[in-house]
Amino acid sequence: MYKVSIISIGDELCIGQTINTNASWMSQQIIKTGADVITHSTIRDSRREIVSEIERLGKISDLILVTGGLGPTHDDITKAVLTELFNDELVLNNEVLEYLKAFYKKREREFLERHHQQAMLPSKSKVFENKVGTAPGMLFTNESYSLVSMPGVPREMKYIVNNSVIPFIEQKIKESNASVKVYRTIKTSGIPESALAEKIGDIDFLNGSSLAFLPSYHGVRMRIGTVSDSFENANIELDRVEKIIRSNVEDFVLGTNDIDLYKIVSSKLKESNKTISVAESCTSGMLGEYLTRESGSSSYFLGGIMSYSNESKVNFLNVNENLIESYGAVSEEVAKQMAKNCRKKFGSDYSLSITGVAGPGGGSEEKPVGLVWIGYSDEEKTYAKKYIFTNDREANRQLSCGQAMTILNNELKNEYTGN
Amino acid sequence: MYKVSIISIGDELCIGQTINTNASWMSQQIIKTGADVITHSTIRDSRREIVSEIERLGKISDLILVTGGLGPTHDDITKAVLTELFNDELVLNNEVLEYLKAFYKKREREFLERHHQQAMLPSKSKVFENKVGTAPGMLFTNESYSLVSMPGVPREMKYIVNNSVIPFIEQKIKESNASVKVYRTIKTSGIPESALAEKIGDIDFLNGSSLAFLPSYHGVRMRIGTVSDSFENANIELDRVEKIIRSNVEDFVLGTNDIDLYKIVSSKLKESNKTISVAESCTSGMLGEYLTRESGSSSYFLGGIMSYSNESKVNFLNVNENLIESYGAVSEEVAKQMAKNCRKKFGSDYSLSITGVAGPGGGSEEKPVGLVWIGYSDEEKTYAKKYIFTNDREANRQLSCGQAMTILNNELKNEYTGN
Repeated sequence: MYKVSIISIGDELCIGQTINTNASWMSQQIIKTGADVITHSTIRDSRREIVSEIERLGKISDLILVTGGLGPTHDDITKAVLTELFNDELVLNNEVLEYLKAFYKKREREFLERHHQQAMLPSKSKVFENKVGTAPGMLFTNESYSLVSMPGVPREMKYIVNNSVIPFIEQKIKESNASVKVYRTIKTSGIPESALAEKIGDIDFLNGSSLAFLPSYHGVRMRIGTVSDSFENANIELDRVEKIIRSNVEDFVLGTNDIDLYKIVSSKLKESNKTISVAESCTSGMLGEYLTRESGSSSYFLGGIMSYSNESKVNFLNVNENLIESYGAVSEEVAKQMAKNCRKKFGSDYSLSITGVAGPGGGSEEKPVGLVWIGYSDEEKTYAKKYIFTNDREANRQLSCGQAMTILNNELKNEYTGN
Repeated sequence: MYKVSIISIGDELCIGQTINTNASWMSQQIIKTGADVITHSTIRDSRREIVSEIERLGKISDLILVTGGLGPTHDDITKAVLTELFNDELVLNNEVLEYLKAFYKKREREFLERHHQQAMLPSKSKVFENKVGTAPGMLFTNESYSLVSMPGVPREMKYIVNNSVIPFIEQKIKESNASVKVYRTIKTSGIPESALAEKIGDIDFLNGSSLAFLPSYHGVRMRIGTVSDSFENANIELDRVEKIIRSNVEDFVLGTNDIDLYKIVSSKLKESNKTISVAESCTSGMLGEYLTRESGSSSYFLGGIMSYSNESKVNFLNVNENLIESYGAVSEEVAKQMAKNCRKKFGSDYSLSITGVAGPGGGSEEKPVGLVWIGYSDEEKTYAKKYIFTNDREANRQLSCGQAMTILNNELKNEYTGN
């Protein structure tokens, strides 16, 4: 197998000031090529540590991906260290210089002396274009391994990985006829991990392939994995395993791999030419934010009300004041009115509403922290469902959005089946 | 200095399916003791890799923290590997056995044979209590380093770190009279990294202390660090450095350490008994979500409109239809009307509005992807500012929220200065 290691450089990572999301994102992309990610390592902006870590991982890896330490400020040393390590020297790259000048001009920012340094690149390295920032990626090679250095800014790293690193790995695997490790993730919603495991039962059918359960706010993911001589054969095996798993839990399956709950409901709405609006109290915009993550969301998302105060529920959603007084803002009745009136006000086909006690304060014996009512409305019906989540504010808000989208997804599924 | 390394064990971490939040959380706690976190390493559930990584890090660390691989299922091998590595054997720990039986009984779950195994512990290791789960922490020691093994479940790891690991490190630093490394982070908003560096200029004043810049969507953080014989002396030095930095960039400083832009504006609004509402187009709820992250946000956040469609801008915010036709929805005029009318509709003291081309589609020559107008309104004035961000949808939405909160923060600052 083609072995990849990831080195993340940065004092801020070592001391925990920044969570290392780069390493996990890169791994997710890399495993799609069939390559094996063997280790992540986080080290400080130190010449000695960078050199010793590269030398260590160079012995066990075909490719080392390095992020961080390429910015225009004085604490960024990676480029100098790598140039020395690979016995190279920095030379002016005119193409990159022109790109940088245009980059700053477009943003109406001055081109400073320190920006100039970013066009100084190792003479023997191959430049991996970065069209979304100022520090390009650099590919170094020696007799035993390759190394790609990239900026630590996530969107710049992502650009370089997608456009240059992945094609590079694919080419290497092809050339070397390496065996591949292939994963497939089956995503579910609306069922807890233990119930899922119970339904799947005995796992003898795996027969050497692997199965792991990974819970998240918006549903449980099941990861199956297998090693094979080709993608084709690996996929035959994964198809076999997926089929058996689905036969037990099909009702809860959203799809595989990159599918996400918000992406599914977004694309179903788009395809069916239906529109939606939302009325959010305790989540205050979080659901609207999810439903507009996909480009082109204006074709189905009309808008929403963050009805955080009781007054805003009355003024913008015509929720009956007496209803709030009798049942409280967190109640089935209010959730239903929010959804129904939101739909009418926006003239959308569907509406979702969320009202709950996110916590950590504001709970009572009768309405504890974690109690959330989620409403749904379409032309034919309006209802609300009750949930009791956790003691954690962030978790309660995320879980509310997950359940709201699960309700919508099920309604959209019903509609499809009906056609 | 007392040196700490962190090893995270788990296939799901290596392939990127789970983001390693444990390592950063642990680091954040550890650096508060003055200890030095030198590296994080993520490896797979493999006997060979676990042994080789511990042996490598044992040579450069005083303490190794290991998470993962302690559960009751078959793929958890850490305990067996560690017992062998430290030439020990597993013996029944009656105290832990009694605790486990009570733990399962309280949860009305059967006490199974495989649960029994969790009370089998290395005879020479010290048990670090885990009162929120079933796998206790274990402290191993040999002549050159210590090692603590903990479960990977965040809540359980956190319990053991807070109650046993931190006191252990503090004791070790005290006993050995080790020097301490102390950090302080100065958070800014509204100024890019390069301009900040430019304003600070020559860094000779650091005089051995360190300074690092960490950009994020909502502002640049500057981390200063120093090594000293005591916390007291370290803080004298950090005060000195902070004072010099602030003297150059005070206008952009939000505060130090755990402060965040959304927390600052939230607490300023709360303290001043002022209220806010938001009108969001391209961010569609993201700003509202930020402004309600803090518990008790209902005292200042009245609500908002996700005016995604043009109709909703007209219907809910009384934006003049002719204005949209003449200038387009992404324009200074519309941003101003959104902010002003939102404030009036909600009866809030302040309003912020965001309208822009988030992308990746929908851009034009005149209005490119990344163009965002952010409006502000209070009783005395209404204005809008223009920004040109990036080509990335997520970045554009996050940066818009960061700038909107920066505008609000500056207005709240002006108000305070005026009093």
